[in-house]
Amino acid sequence: MNAPDPVALGVRAEAMIAELGAISAEPGRLVRLFLTPEHRRAADLVARWMRTAGLSVSEDALGTVRGRFGSAKRRLLIGSHIDTVIDAGKYDGPLGVIAGILAAEHFARAKAELPFGIDVLAFGDEEGSRFPATLTSSSACAGAFESEALATADAQGVTLAEALRIYGKNPDDIAAAAYQPEDAAGYIEVHIEQGPVLEAKGEPLGIVTGIVGQIRLRVTVTGEAGHAGTVPMNLRHDAYTGAAEMALALERIAREHPDDGMVGTVGWIEAKPAAVNIIPGRVLFTVDLRALTDALRLEATERFAAEAARVAKARGLTVAIEPFHEIATAHCAPALQEALAASVTELGHTPIRLPSGAGHDAQVMVRLCPSAMLFVRCRGGISHNPAEFASVADMGLAVAALIRFIEKFQLG
Amino acid sequence: MNAPDPVALGVRAEAMIAELGAISAEPGRLVRLFLTPEHRRAADLVARWMRTAGLSVSEDALGTVRGRFGSAKRRLLIGSHIDTVIDAGKYDGPLGVIAGILAAEHFARAKAELPFGIDVLAFGDEEGSRFPATLTSSSACAGAFESEALATADAQGVTLAEALRIYGKNPDDIAAAAYQPEDAAGYIEVHIEQGPVLEAKGEPLGIVTGIVGQIRLRVTVTGEAGHAGTVPMNLRHDAYTGAAEMALALERIAREHPDDGMVGTVGWIEAKPAAVNIIPGRVLFTVDLRALTDALRLEATERFAAEAARVAKARGLTVAIEPFHEIATAHCAPALQEALAASVTELGHTPIRLPSGAGHDAQVMVRLCPSAMLFVRCRGGISHNPAEFASVADMGLAVAALIRFIEKFQLG
Repeated sequence: MNAPDPVALGVRAEAMIAELGAISAEPGRLVRLFLTPEHRRAADLVARWMRTAGLSVSEDALGTVRGRFGSAKRRLLIGSHIDTVIDAGKYDGPLGVIAGILAAEHFARAKAELPFGIDVLAFGDEEGSRFPATLTSSSACAGAFESEALATADAQGVTLAEALRIYGKNPDDIAAAAYQPEDAAGYIEVHIEQGPVLEAKGEPLGIVTGIVGQIRLRVTVTGEAGHAGTVPMNLRHDAYTGAAEMALALERIAREHPDDGMVGTVGWIEAKPAAVNIIPGRVLFTVDLRALTDALRLEATERFAAEAARVAKARGLTVAIEPFHEIATAHCAPALQEALAASVTELGHTPIRLPSGAGHDAQVMVRLCPSAMLFVRCRGGISHNPAEFASVADMGLAVAALIRFIEKFQLG
Repeated sequence: MNAPDPVALGVRAEAMIAELGAISAEPGRLVRLFLTPEHRRAADLVARWMRTAGLSVSEDALGTVRGRFGSAKRRLLIGSHIDTVIDAGKYDGPLGVIAGILAAEHFARAKAELPFGIDVLAFGDEEGSRFPATLTSSSACAGAFESEALATADAQGVTLAEALRIYGKNPDDIAAAAYQPEDAAGYIEVHIEQGPVLEAKGEPLGIVTGIVGQIRLRVTVTGEAGHAGTVPMNLRHDAYTGAAEMALALERIAREHPDDGMVGTVGWIEAKPAAVNIIPGRVLFTVDLRALTDALRLEATERFAAEAARVAKARGLTVAIEPFHEIATAHCAPALQEALAASVTELGHTPIRLPSGAGHDAQVMVRLCPSAMLFVRCRGGISHNPAEFASVADMGLAVAALIRFIEKFQLG
């Protein structure tokens, strides 16, 4: 086999990123949600690429597109996702799928005889932008799908089960989508960093040590709506000022563990009835809390709940906190980290070790098999934003490093 | 003339309240906004009542329905509004219009010869629920209409000027809607209290000493959107935690002057892009600030702006504050207060003196002529809510007190 040319690989990756990035539900911005017509079009494009690359293509019960190279029973899994957040960038997700296709193509074109097969996986539900559940596609592959997710509904009231049927899938087939642990030799995911570390270090590629655990909460604060002019301040039960105090408590708690990568965010809030001259009687907001150490995250979650209860009591409000997504810290496999790092070094670069503050499909795949992630520098650390950008050179190096990794991959 | 029977008046008022309360844009809840088809239907019903009561009816350029009794040049004005908030109660506004019609009818039926005429006014824009501007109808009557209001637009982008034309009115006629100050002998408004004071005192009727001044602000906080997992707490420019801190600053400031009736409210807030896993990059919210003393209100507004600027600076955010509605404290005319109080006393009740924390059309009418308000007890102090309620007995007493007031009203 010829040594791959990183620049040529990067140019191809960029063209594929652009083609996939044009598939959106809206003309002016990128919106590609799970099990929508846009997901269908994106999956069809990925399947076409896989076939052209010499892979055989199938789709599982969650709509994950699978491109298969080689017939060995044991498989090296390489994947990422093709769904997006609302008003997304083009690189978050697709880069890992495209890197997998280009790397597998390298071996398929050469008719390489490897002691393992390669499965490239294009998951459809990593962002959790449509349903309250997230990571359902990779969970199904990892045999970790929780059937309660089927009853969750999107903003239009369509349940995941209904959406799957509309997409042409049968929820009864989900169990069969799981890999047997003895068949899964490892999982590798290439992804843009979505943070500022690699850019600050001046290095194109990073080796992820672990993915922070996270919990998402739905918080409902109930007070008493009233006329903004006639209810004196001391008689109010204003659900919004209570919610504001809770958000600041979350911020205070999350700030206490910067070394553990702890972050806490209120990203969505709604005050009802939402009129300039009415005291809010009910406020709903979400909490997203992450940390590298599960115990610290759990402790912070409990402290937030206690603070929210204290605020509510002091203000004559009630508060209900409902977790709707939780995932433990995923530690990347040391042997795979070492092998990825060696590949980066061989390409003449320094592999930077860093944790991932963002959730990834690898977070679920660690439950199936040893997993690792290769991070690619992105400009300004900007992600979940149309300004998201990774360079041709950096993407090409990532694919080249992945190819080197596969060449040397040893079955354990 | 016979002495009016308060119970019979209350029964009629209640029936009329129910009939008007059935006119809504939505089947399940009461929504009647300015210059909508529902406004048209409500105005037509009020006009029919006025004609039946023996009044001659006209409509001015803002759609205010006017029922005229007597031909004297000098007029006693009695009015309130027929627009509502979203998901409103039935009493807020209509009670004052209906009380005026029933009182005028008392004199019209008796062919009473008074040294002044009576104009019953049904305003259409007191709540400000459709356009950013409010009190435009009474402003036109008071000769205080500000033409900039014509360019303000509703949520669908329809300007007030366009809406007036669609309603069949001509903005060029607004100036002619103004009363001449020498013709307006006084303005009286009957209204539910919308607060808990009369109920706590166990009295049906109250005499308003003044209507608190108010300012409404639109606040825009701009930070930097980012991934909720990858941006460390110390590098964030979270527009929402900044906005939360500003809301608590407003609350702290408003709490300092309970004796002046000061209240501050954040009733509406929106964090963008509004996703559980994205740090808000922009937050918009409204502020409603009221106080009896204008100087204290202005000082509080300035302190809020300074606090918001301080919070923004400390967090690396920017904040823009745009006032979109402001009205000075309206002091009720002492002579009219005394006359209303005497009428209540004659009916065997104790007239409670109290300020109004809510805005009312009287707030604008004081700029035209001596004005006063008669408050009616409402259950639980609840208003702007379907549970809003005033009893037949209390409403009947209010109309009876208004009739006694008119009987003794002396031109100054």
